[in-house]
Amino acid sequence: MTEAVRTTAQTPAQARAVFRAGAGTPTDGWCTGYTQANLISLPADWAYDVLLFCQRNPKACPVLEVTDPGSWTTALAPDADLRTDLPRYRVWRNGELADEPTDVRDVWRDDLVTFLIGCSFTFEGALADAGVPMRHIDQGRNVAMFRTDRPCRPAGRMHGPLVVSMRQIPAGLVDTATRISALMPAVHGGPVHVGDPAELGIKDLSRPDFGDPVESQAGDVPVFWACGVTPQAALMASRPPFAITHAPGYMLITDARDVNYRIV
Amino acid sequence: MTEAVRTTAQTPAQARAVFRAGAGTPTDGWCTGYTQANLISLPADWAYDVLLFCQRNPKACPVLEVTDPGSWTTALAPDADLRTDLPRYRVWRNGELADEPTDVRDVWRDDLVTFLIGCSFTFEGALADAGVPMRHIDQGRNVAMFRTDRPCRPAGRMHGPLVVSMRQIPAGLVDTATRISALMPAVHGGPVHVGDPAELGIKDLSRPDFGDPVESQAGDVPVFWACGVTPQAALMASRPPFAITHAPGYMLITDARDVNYRIV
Repeated sequence: MTEAVRTTAQTPAQARAVFRAGAGTPTDGWCTGYTQANLISLPADWAYDVLLFCQRNPKACPVLEVTDPGSWTTALAPDADLRTDLPRYRVWRNGELADEPTDVRDVWRDDLVTFLIGCSFTFEGALADAGVPMRHIDQGRNVAMFRTDRPCRPAGRMHGPLVVSMRQIPAGLVDTATRISALMPAVHGGPVHVGDPAELGIKDLSRPDFGDPVESQAGDVPVFWACGVTPQAALMASRPPFAITHAPGYMLITDARDVNYRIV
Repeated sequence: MTEAVRTTAQTPAQARAVFRAGAGTPTDGWCTGYTQANLISLPADWAYDVLLFCQRNPKACPVLEVTDPGSWTTALAPDADLRTDLPRYRVWRNGELADEPTDVRDVWRDDLVTFLIGCSFTFEGALADAGVPMRHIDQGRNVAMFRTDRPCRPAGRMHGPLVVSMRQIPAGLVDTATRISALMPAVHGGPVHVGDPAELGIKDLSRPDFGDPVESQAGDVPVFWACGVTPQAALMASRPPFAITHAPGYMLITDARDVNYRIV
């Protein structure tokens, strides 16, 4: 079903309508060319700490948009309802995962400030255009994401480890992937590490902390990018009383174009 | 004197020592290769509005660093004292310029949060390396800065017009200057406009709102970059009860290297 639905949902508005109706599938590979975003909503009294955490960890948390308190709309997708239009959410209470619904209207609060954060899916289209294979998409899987042993720079009450997404890339294309993603700093920019998972404290590439395991092919090298799930890991560590996020891999599809985040 | 002092102050620490001792000269052309920064300090209860204003206006206000409340130190220049080491400051009360001292220790407050914001001086070295003449430096003048008729995106109580810096650039080098500065998004990135001052609501290039007028040469085209003085214009419009900024052109010279802000 997913493939058929994805093929017919050609515009972001159509995709959001599919998700609003309740379908909960990962969004990687949907609406090629349109920017996807991580979502994190917290009470307004946490907003400064979160925004400063993002400023201090810009590769992991490139902020695309911040709403005013209580607002569930965004200039990045003017007709979207941020409470219904993502395919799956996570609801957090005191840093613990409390629920994974497809709609958060019933738990929405008037004091929530929502951060939309750049997503590495944005540069995948540019990489694919340059001939870089996307193994996880070819295998019909969510991208693999890992908690690292590198702490983010803390900000007020917000602290936690860097989370990375990993892509297996043919060795001869690593330089291309590095250069192209570096030109898109608003969506994580260039890799944080190439080659050795142990350098990031990752023990087993076949057991990601978020998303799915992805099979490599001969000659592939694992390449690691800072990931927009980093704020979720910070929620688990920092334990705000309440928060809503997207489920990893189940993103907001915006009306913005990926090319707009490429700087040259 | 200035030229002699500038020549002997080869490191950022030496330059800051000169300014700490009381010399108040513009910093453009000092310590080539080291990153200079705009400074704005406000009471902590304004910090979220300022940080969000910067996030919403990233070309004008690329945040390099935010201090914790009351701190006068920065990781960008670990031995610097932010209250003494800029050559000239501005003190603002209710949006009105109250003083232009070379030291702000006597008016410092424990609730001040300091924002260090990228400066276009950072890409001037890269432009010069590429053969782009810097007319204002050749003429021994501060760069010319103008208030535009383009409003910034407001954030809470913070609002105001975009301020731009202008450089007269030979027509055949405009593309080079555009491309190179675009590769440095943390220090304003590419130009916001090339060619017609009237498009930005600027009536007379010989009468800048900040800095000095700069003479063009035959074949020059005016090129406009978003400027880190934008937050000062927002202070004037938004009238926080108290603020400290650098004086336009009299920047913090950090220990960071310009090349670190070039993304490829």
